[in-house]
Amino acid sequence: MVENAARRHIETDIKGRTFTPFAGAKKHTYASKVTTLKNALKQCGLKNGDTISFHHQLREGDYVITTTLEAVRELGVKNIRMAQTAMFNIHEPVIDFIKDRTVNRIEGSINGSVGAYVSKHLLDFPVILRSHGGRWAAVKKGELHPTIAVIAASAADERGNATGIVGESAFGPISYSQVDAMHADHVIIVTDTLVEYPSPHQEIQERYVDVVAHVDNIGDPKKIMSGTTKVTENPEKLKIAHDCVDLMDATGLIKNGMVFQSGAGGISLAAMKYLGERLEEKDITASTATGGLTQLICDIYKAGRVKNIYYSQVFDAYSVKFLQEDLGLPADIGHYADPTSKGRTIDGLDTVVLGATEVDTDFNVNVNTHSDGRLLHGIGGHQDTAAGASLSIITCPVFRKTNPIVREHVTTVTTPGDVVDAIVTNQGIAINPNRKDLIEKVKGAIPLVSIEELKESAYQATGGPQHVEFTNDVVGMTKWFDGTVLDIIWKVKDV
Amino acid sequence: MVENAARRHIETDIKGRTFTPFAGAKKHTYASKVTTLKNALKQCGLKNGDTISFHHQLREGDYVITTTLEAVRELGVKNIRMAQTAMFNIHEPVIDFIKDRTVNRIEGSINGSVGAYVSKHLLDFPVILRSHGGRWAAVKKGELHPTIAVIAASAADERGNATGIVGESAFGPISYSQVDAMHADHVIIVTDTLVEYPSPHQEIQERYVDVVAHVDNIGDPKKIMSGTTKVTENPEKLKIAHDCVDLMDATGLIKNGMVFQSGAGGISLAAMKYLGERLEEKDITASTATGGLTQLICDIYKAGRVKNIYYSQVFDAYSVKFLQEDLGLPADIGHYADPTSKGRTIDGLDTVVLGATEVDTDFNVNVNTHSDGRLLHGIGGHQDTAAGASLSIITCPVFRKTNPIVREHVTTVTTPGDVVDAIVTNQGIAINPNRKDLIEKVKGAIPLVSIEELKESAYQATGGPQHVEFTNDVVGMTKWFDGTVLDIIWKVKDV
Repeated sequence: MVENAARRHIETDIKGRTFTPFAGAKKHTYASKVTTLKNALKQCGLKNGDTISFHHQLREGDYVITTTLEAVRELGVKNIRMAQTAMFNIHEPVIDFIKDRTVNRIEGSINGSVGAYVSKHLLDFPVILRSHGGRWAAVKKGELHPTIAVIAASAADERGNATGIVGESAFGPISYSQVDAMHADHVIIVTDTLVEYPSPHQEIQERYVDVVAHVDNIGDPKKIMSGTTKVTENPEKLKIAHDCVDLMDATGLIKNGMVFQSGAGGISLAAMKYLGERLEEKDITASTATGGLTQLICDIYKAGRVKNIYYSQVFDAYSVKFLQEDLGLPADIGHYADPTSKGRTIDGLDTVVLGATEVDTDFNVNVNTHSDGRLLHGIGGHQDTAAGASLSIITCPVFRKTNPIVREHVTTVTTPGDVVDAIVTNQGIAINPNRKDLIEKVKGAIPLVSIEELKESAYQATGGPQHVEFTNDVVGMTKWFDGTVLDIIWKVKDV
Repeated sequence: MVENAARRHIETDIKGRTFTPFAGAKKHTYASKVTTLKNALKQCGLKNGDTISFHHQLREGDYVITTTLEAVRELGVKNIRMAQTAMFNIHEPVIDFIKDRTVNRIEGSINGSVGAYVSKHLLDFPVILRSHGGRWAAVKKGELHPTIAVIAASAADERGNATGIVGESAFGPISYSQVDAMHADHVIIVTDTLVEYPSPHQEIQERYVDVVAHVDNIGDPKKIMSGTTKVTENPEKLKIAHDCVDLMDATGLIKNGMVFQSGAGGISLAAMKYLGERLEEKDITASTATGGLTQLICDIYKAGRVKNIYYSQVFDAYSVKFLQEDLGLPADIGHYADPTSKGRTIDGLDTVVLGATEVDTDFNVNVNTHSDGRLLHGIGGHQDTAAGASLSIITCPVFRKTNPIVREHVTTVTTPGDVVDAIVTNQGIAINPNRKDLIEKVKGAIPLVSIEELKESAYQATGGPQHVEFTNDVVGMTKWFDGTVLDIIWKVKDV
């Protein structure tokens, strides 16, 4: 028996369990967390070698990565590992931060110029590329541990309740960062718009937030809504998109209650447009559209042809406005695609239409590297949705200029052929021979070609793939969403 | 270099990090999780000695605890530890489950008849009582680890996305169970209303859910909305409530932007009613009402006298309907009160009005036991809000019948005097002498008495506390929300 701070006599050992005596109570209160970005990083104890994570929902309009790295440089801190969910051409200044060793490692998706740079100038550790779901799982399991999560918000209150739904730079719900908020050692919200407490939306709540960094601008609203939401006008691509919908239809997937994935990118958008029309023609109501929200999907929803939009990111200003009026059913990336969870939005997908930079005769798909070996794109949701969909469709031309797109071996495996069901090209449709059920279903309705025929045609037109000589140096790697290594991105020999 | 399942040659050791080769990909799909409650428990591997958690949001209408324990008994499983967030008179059948050793321990709040029973018939381990926030933290830290979380939902889809917002037995957002869903070994959603996928609300998402148990009725809708939401009509209690608002006013807290806690219980509700009127009179707009939602608060909100209702549970049918139309700003219990978080809803509370079964001259408050030693109530948010509020007000009569309520020592310390600021009684107001600032502020405006004077008055009227003889046997304990032991509830000697 001991006397505790409430002057009560208590037992501290009861049947094998040990208890700690009450030591006193005090009032709990709060203080504003708002400060500058530089102070925020200092308060979070930023030091050499730390890992800083970011989300990419400001896309080509993002100022937060560059502004943060400038603050890191001003603080004299070096050898940062970046753990962004994706990076775009606007992040070209990252090259300078690599050159002066502010940044020495990148463990996250890279699009564009930084990718081209690190393909030639190796970082201290290879770039690790993961899918949306794979990254979520890696942070959750501690395989990728952010020291500091820097989370861009288009509005936040002084206590750190933060959102991407309202404000000048609204980009839709903050979908990628909850896992970082929960697992990082420290969490900084970066916003240009402080709202009165409590913030009316709170994808990230104050319980996870150490500091709120108030900056002038988190991004350029015009560029946040990227150009990938335009439906293609190219007749050849439109035909590919139309063929995708014919294929879906022939396999019997276009039926009441269907669940489909929508996204950005010219052909995929065109396919969604044709799918909307097909739903009208057949007087069918889909259950759910998952993935990225665009005006096209909002319009299909408004027309009553899909009951639920279950979105994980938002691609255009129209859609942001749409959800400001009715939030509908947002699904953050963990809900959408975490492979370690007990159930995900994409597990019930009937179909998805995805792109490719290359496809091979094993149906492996590459979206990360170009045929010259340069790392220029992230994985995004490619793996996740391909594995989640009953019918995953890859669209591509058979060749581009002098480069065969359908080929014997892809330069890099992004998504393994095991989960790729059909390749729809400008020269016909090939179905993965593993999917005998699909081949049987479309017999007579859809003319098929073999993947080898498509490859032969590509090789005849182009003379085959150009020889690229690789070194033994590792630029990066692609991981399957379970954390295993799918492929290595090798450095090309300097010429 | 090894060849992986995608037939790519990869490095598995790079600069000290080891990587696992890709071993193959497969399609991910889903199956309906719906089954019976008994099957659900079997599928979750229920065994002797397991801990089963429940939330209490169905209150006096709850069928889920009893139905679950019946299934446990049918499965022949014994020695279950119950980890409910609270228990009511409707749970009297639990006594039978204790008698036949289906249940042998309870680690959660107990109200009413089960409490009376275990006060006389000790369980195999003392009852551990925690506040809302304290329980959340205990589950999060693993101090209280549910083997199986049984989560009542008024609607759910077949994949386990679950809500309390819609359905026949709607009770408001499932606020208590997210932490159980995240940390339990297995999670069962129990619902009587299966809705089409995807559920339109999803406080608990499929990612955490193993099984959906479909039952006939999760509860009695009429009793789910308990009787504690009636404003008192007792003139003495009304005067106490009115004095609370005068006290708030005198301390300068009734100002534009104020944040107040609302709850159930006659005097607290009356105080909220008077506070609403005071806001009108002074033409003041409060910022935020936290805590439990009642029609009273909805009406203050509709009158434009509080900008935000930031609710953690819902007490009446009117409020459920209200939030079905506009969800507003729900705050789950972790957001509301988790003491291990970086920021909570209640940290900015200006004031709260709370009840007491006893108060002592150190300003310690008891809400758990009656003066005869019987454990009859849980802690609820008492500790959390007292510590969060700048002005925590306790209301009680000086004595009840022959029992002095204000006394030298409370039977059990629920909330330590360190965080109790004022006692408002039918015989005057006592302010904690530690709060010199408050005493200074109200000087001249509010007549004060000392807590000793109140005690003396109680003792004169009643002849002082009846002598209760305690044994050395431990019925249970109260914990402070940081996990330390505040007090032991001793067994009373049999007479």
